Amino acid sequence: MKNDCVFCAIVAGEIPSFKVYEDDCVLAYLDINPFTKGHALVIPKVHSAGLLDTPAETLKEVVVRVQKVAAHIKATLPCDGFNILQNNGAAAGQTVSHLHFHIVPRFADAEGGAVFTPHTGDMEALKALAERLRF
Amino acid sequence: MKNDCVFCAIVAGEIPSFKVYEDDCVLAYLDINPFTKGHALVIPKVHSAGLLDTPAETLKEVVVRVQKVAAHIKATLPCDGFNILQNNGAAAGQTVSHLHFHIVPRFADAEGGAVFTPHTGDMEALKALAERLRF
Repeated sequence: MKNDCVFCAIVAGEIPSFKVYEDDCVLAYLDINPFTKGHALVIPKVHSAGLLDTPAETLKEVVVRVQKVAAHIKATLPCDGFNILQNNGAAAGQTVSHLHFHIVPRFADAEGGAVFTPHTGDMEALKALAERLRF
Repeated sequence: MKNDCVFCAIVAGEIPSFKVYEDDCVLAYLDINPFTKGHALVIPKVHSAGLLDTPAETLKEVVVRVQKVAAHIKATLPCDGFNILQNNGAAAGQTVSHLHFHIVPRFADAEGGAVFTPHTGDMEALKALAERLRF
């Protein structure tokens, strides 16, 4: 447990949460400032700041819980689709530095559609960038 | 390989891509209609439509590749943060029915910040919803 981490405090029960699911590895609860109805977070009980700080074995265990919780929420709400969103860094909108996966239910009749706005790519620039990034 | 799937055709080499990374399990390449510079997709080579159709063992292997490719892109671009986004269903903006994780680099000096707009939650409604969704 990290002392100044609000999500660690939720895991420890020091701060209440609207719990949806819990097991030995994760806690899942509703976001109190939801993007959409049923918006839930899945977090590992062991602290890590973000995706790149999380041991691969932990990440594997967390992602299957994300799948399980998403399946349950989709069936129970129900909703038409959902986004899995995981933010890393303030520039990406991460506000709590404890790994969390957002499950964002989406509804065909309201605010459905793309999360980000795509831009038509410049093929030459993409080719050069792919060469620079390839590993 | 699914016959009418454009991402399966990319895996098979029938459609070219701006490849960033490839191994036995996944292919990663730049999105040709990027949200931001360096926007990449990580897809499993074996077809599944979305998160809920993917075997847990496959999902585990894919997510560690997402982590690996994201780390590489963040360090190489570099960028200040990134979003991992995985869409399920047309209502959630999924346009290709082959599991794919978006890695969306984000930059502090341009278009940084939250992906979705949060709404202040109604605590009573959240409490009731959590009770309905709990499992």
